[in-house]
Amino acid sequence: MEDLLICTNCKEGYNKETVDFRCQLCGEPLDVKEIKEGTIKEGNPLKQSILDRYQDFYPYLSKANTLSLGEGFTPLVSSQSLAKEYGVSGLYFKDESSNPTWSFKDRGTITGIIRAKDLGYFKIGTVSTGNMATSVAAYGARAGLETYILVKKDMAEEKLKPISIYNPHLIRVDGDYGKLYYESLKLGHENQIYFINSDSPFRVEGYKTIAFEIAEQLDFMPPDYLIVPTSAGGNFRGIEKGFRELKNVGIIDRLPKMVAVQATGCCPIYTAYKAGKEKISRFERPKTIAQAIENPYPPSGNQVLRLIKDGRGLALSVTDEEIIRAQARLASIGIFGQVASATSLAAVEKLRENNILKATDKVVAIITASGLKYTAALDKHSLKMETCKMEDLGQYIKSR
Amino acid sequence: MEDLLICTNCKEGYNKETVDFRCQLCGEPLDVKEIKEGTIKEGNPLKQSILDRYQDFYPYLSKANTLSLGEGFTPLVSSQSLAKEYGVSGLYFKDESSNPTWSFKDRGTITGIIRAKDLGYFKIGTVSTGNMATSVAAYGARAGLETYILVKKDMAEEKLKPISIYNPHLIRVDGDYGKLYYESLKLGHENQIYFINSDSPFRVEGYKTIAFEIAEQLDFMPPDYLIVPTSAGGNFRGIEKGFRELKNVGIIDRLPKMVAVQATGCCPIYTAYKAGKEKISRFERPKTIAQAIENPYPPSGNQVLRLIKDGRGLALSVTDEEIIRAQARLASIGIFGQVASATSLAAVEKLRENNILKATDKVVAIITASGLKYTAALDKHSLKMETCKMEDLGQYIKSR
Repeated sequence: MEDLLICTNCKEGYNKETVDFRCQLCGEPLDVKEIKEGTIKEGNPLKQSILDRYQDFYPYLSKANTLSLGEGFTPLVSSQSLAKEYGVSGLYFKDESSNPTWSFKDRGTITGIIRAKDLGYFKIGTVSTGNMATSVAAYGARAGLETYILVKKDMAEEKLKPISIYNPHLIRVDGDYGKLYYESLKLGHENQIYFINSDSPFRVEGYKTIAFEIAEQLDFMPPDYLIVPTSAGGNFRGIEKGFRELKNVGIIDRLPKMVAVQATGCCPIYTAYKAGKEKISRFERPKTIAQAIENPYPPSGNQVLRLIKDGRGLALSVTDEEIIRAQARLASIGIFGQVASATSLAAVEKLRENNILKATDKVVAIITASGLKYTAALDKHSLKMETCKMEDLGQYIKSR
Repeated sequence: MEDLLICTNCKEGYNKETVDFRCQLCGEPLDVKEIKEGTIKEGNPLKQSILDRYQDFYPYLSKANTLSLGEGFTPLVSSQSLAKEYGVSGLYFKDESSNPTWSFKDRGTITGIIRAKDLGYFKIGTVSTGNMATSVAAYGARAGLETYILVKKDMAEEKLKPISIYNPHLIRVDGDYGKLYYESLKLGHENQIYFINSDSPFRVEGYKTIAFEIAEQLDFMPPDYLIVPTSAGGNFRGIEKGFRELKNVGIIDRLPKMVAVQATGCCPIYTAYKAGKEKISRFERPKTIAQAIENPYPPSGNQVLRLIKDGRGLALSVTDEEIIRAQARLASIGIFGQVASATSLAAVEKLRENNILKATDKVVAIITASGLKYTAALDKHSLKMETCKMEDLGQYIKSR
């Protein structure tokens, strides 16, 4: 029998998950085996789940439509004005805020949970400070599983409440948060809890659907550049794998260049990329407004480096100032993304400054989550507002 | 030429909008003329806008796909566990939080803005304290129109920021908020600003698409009951009209019973319905946690009463306590709706208590907006959370 999981680095094969979801030989993350044949199912997306439509790309998951909350099938919003401004032939935003818990995480949560159920688990968990915690709590509730959400000790109540509403076991952990990812996997092994962390193989699988949808939405002509705000690296890996599988099965005939964008205040992948290294190092003293992608030692960082080498992609970083400006610019075309999401538009600007983009290029930027997710970042924008007596409104408006 | 607008009450016809969008004879709201023939377009919703797919139902709007932000095509989430609990054959939630600004308002905003552009306006506006303000600000930005958002004087900064990010003319108005709706229309007339308020006819038109999608999602077998959290009455009117038009054109063969649910702390429509009156009265001293539907004198209230009389529908009210409980219950199946949205599940419970629901009934409840929209309501839920040292986690989990 062919191996289900393959090491992204040394290609060692495994028939099932290893305890820590990583290669026992080289310690690098595992990928689910690549799909070589299949097609996109016909039918009306209004009446399908993403796992119905793209089921050929998930032969190893049982069908479990009852778990769907309507994840995926998100809009690809074109902006002619920004395309013109940046001198490209097309600029599109894949708006992942239109997901059941308003971030891309839901796509990976459902594939992860189905895998957990297929393996017979009654308990799931995750380690997260934000979008993923909410997503796993929601789907854990939907699936009727015992759900463990491990968060930082000092996490603010404001951020805990939208997780707590789904009623998981919500646990603030007092200790080194950086170690909790690894600790959780050990705990999971000992207590039969399937931890669906940021880059676990079956979570990564869910993100392939972003590539599938973009391909459909662009009539199977992939963009030249695909920009992904990158933290742990799971989303980046999933989208890249999705395009690769579409090419395998003959649905598209070329791959986009994948761009990993990070915040300058926490950019371990970009730092290694720029230095021509093959491995990331821990980023010391991370500090950025883009909290959702602030991961100083991304578990899939090395795999992202492997995926972008030899000109198949690139990494870059953008400053908090550029990110905030991009968030406002995005809102000016009607899209209010979480501040970490705005790195993707800031990246377009940087690619253009560096003369990387050509006039014929088509660019897709991923908006990973809703602007309502982390509203503290709004303090960085001036509140433009005026006050007027009702009887003076007419005069006021005429004077504009 | 056939009249474009018809009075919902006296059936007087108009060829274009009246200054205050209401009948000059009887003062009641106007409807866009009813569609009698047409069909749903083929094609892939991933590559269409709702106004592409349902264009036959909008012959009077120009095609303006460049304005779409991907509104609509929201999930219809089935809950077998709640269906069983409430003793019905099917219970579905139409999750409108998967919209570009995370509420149903976007559907009506786009139709309203296209109408404004068709009429040659360069300025639009709205009067709102919440979801509609955000929605109009976003689409106004998208359309490049000057956008006036009139809000209450005492509106909290926290609620203003997610509107301000889209950079509209955001004006806090000092004066009687109840009068501002009417004042805005007068101002609009004098200053060539097209105000897309809560029940303006072309906003109501957008909400028809909720009916169209539900019909598709249920294989053209409409539900027995369709529950709508009801404030001004615009959404209720739009959904009802959508089903009516589907029946007109022969796509469905029966209509759902429409249920208007209000909060007991502000239920002018329910109060009139219960008393058998034909007109609503102003609800004195409104007070409810469900702010988004707290409208003491809904401009389309009388039309909602007309639509539900003779057993074609009904109205009911639910207490804040019931609403909060329903919000938690919804989250327990993975859906975190704005607190006002939770009235729809509370209504299911009430319908069942009153022995109105039959075992063969299929019920659809509208979840109007995201739970992230008004997080202050989360204070009503206990924060279930524990704290644990990392080294004790294993012991802690074993003891669960």
